[in-house]
Order: sequence, then structure tokens, then C-alpha cells
Amino acid sequence: MIYYSYENFRDDTCKLIDEVRSFDPEVIVAVARGGLTLAHAMAEGLDIRAVESIRTELYDNDVKRDTICIYGECNLMNHKRVLVVDDIADSGDTLYAIMEKLQGDNPDAEFKTATLFYKKTSIHQPDFTVNEAPDWIDFFWDRDFKKA
Amino acid sequence: MIYYSYENFRDDTCKLIDEVRSFDPEVIVAVARGGLTLAHAMAEGLDIRAVESIRTELYDNDVKRDTICIYGECNLMNHKRVLVVDDIADSGDTLYAIMEKLQGDNPDAEFKTATLFYKKTSIHQPDFTVNEAPDWIDFFWDRDFKKA
Repeated sequence: MIYYSYENFRDDTCKLIDEVRSFDPEVIVAVARGGLTLAHAMAEGLDIRAVESIRTELYDNDVKRDTICIYGECNLMNHKRVLVVDDIADSGDTLYAIMEKLQGDNPDAEFKTATLFYKKTSIHQPDFTVNEAPDWIDFFWDRDFKKA
Repeated sequence: MIYYSYENFRDDTCKLIDEVRSFDPEVIVAVARGGLTLAHAMAEGLDIRAVESIRTELYDNDVKRDTICIYGECNLMNHKRVLVVDDIADSGDTLYAIMEKLQGDNPDAEFKTATLFYKKTSIHQPDFTVNEAPDWIDFFWDRDFKKA
């Protein structure tokens, strides 16, 4: 397990911002909760005011497999290049489901994904990313605001 | 002007989380962009998974005064206690407009606001807050992700 400090985050996010510049996104969609701090930082770095958020919940489904429910209507306002931001592409289930929904709802827009971490086994590989993920990451936002 | 570092933010956010516990919110609405990082941290500290976001844009209006447009549909899912989170209550115009809209759309819910900073002249005084604002604050998210 690694503790991922604010300083690690700051340095990696600056790298990710530089990677993403070529895509020139007009809107950022943050995947809550994990992608919120990253989306905020990237929006500041890229000078993008339009930030939306979306979130998922996983429900047990007796019949078949777990079901991912997506909440939050994104108003992409006819923008054409949309960056979807999350902290990690782990199993990739969340990003896969979100990308399917967003692209389905907005067939004329181009969507790309950015994450700080990825796993090689993720079913969704992000377009922009920085680090291969260790087994477990303790992000500063997971630890720093909880009572000791 | 003060530079508001991550360490300042972490300490103040922990205080704000403690203030807010008595309200026991079920959902957090982040005011984008400024409230995104704070909403994320508070959601982790309070163990709230339901985080939505909303954003405003200010348009010049020749006829009368500037017009605030609000984007983002919040799905509050029948939750009764909603915390609206922003970095600062400055003029208060944004929070005032957002609270009016959210309360109008959800008359049965109770809304409260939390910010890190407030000004005494703000037309909306937050229910929970930490510091009176200096003239200008350079938040770490404003500075740390921009090219030098």
C-alpha cells in the first residue's frame, strides 16, 4: 500500500494536464467521488470553467451480475470534446459504464478519459494516464479528513 | 493576498467537517469549480457517497444587472438534508442564487451551506464556515496546476 500525498498528486496532475492539452477539451466530467479533486485541479490548469459531475452506485443483483446505476445528468451544451476524469481505472467497470452512457446520450461528441492510475487488467484503458497502480493506494483525500 | 496551501485547507476542512456533523447531511452539492475539492474532502470525512455538482455562469445583461445562469440538475433522490459546499461566500451572489433555485426545486428538503471563507458583506451568510476572508486568497488549486 502507498500513501499518495498531496505533493505526489500535484506533480502527477501537472503531467496529466500536459498530456491532455493536445485533446483541447471544452468540458470536464468528474466521476464522483474519486475524480472530484482531480477534475477541479485539471480544470484550473486547463482553464476550463465547465465542470460537471456524475456518480455511480453499485447494486447487488440476485439474477445476474452487479448493476451499476449512474446518477447526474450532464449538460454538455453542444460541446464537442469532453474529458471524463477519475482517480483510477481499477476494474474499469465504472468508467466503461459511464463512457457507454455519455457517448450514447451525446453521439456527436468526442469523449476521452484521464486518470492518475490504471491497472493493466482494467476493462477500460484511459486515453491519458500517469502511473500503473500498486495493489492499494491510500489517496490523501481518503485519509486526511477522517478522524484518527 | 495569502497563499492558502493544502496544509491550511486540510486543517480548516477538518474543523468544518466537525461543525457540520450536527446537521448530519445526506447529500453534498458542490458548487463548481471552487467547491469541488472541498466537497470531495468533506464527503470523505463525513462518509457521504452522494455528491452532486452545480455551476453558475455570469452573463452581462445590458438591460438590468448581471444574470447568473445555473447549470447542472441535482438529483437529490428524496434526501431531506442537503449541504451546499463552496470555497468562499464573497459577494454571496452565487450561493444566494443557487440556494433559491435548489430550495424552489425541492421545497421539502432542508438546505444548509458550508464554506471555508466568508465576507461580512456577503448577501448569503453560510451556516457553517471557518475564516473571515482576507482581500484576496490564492487557493492552492488556483496556483499549483498552472504553468509558471
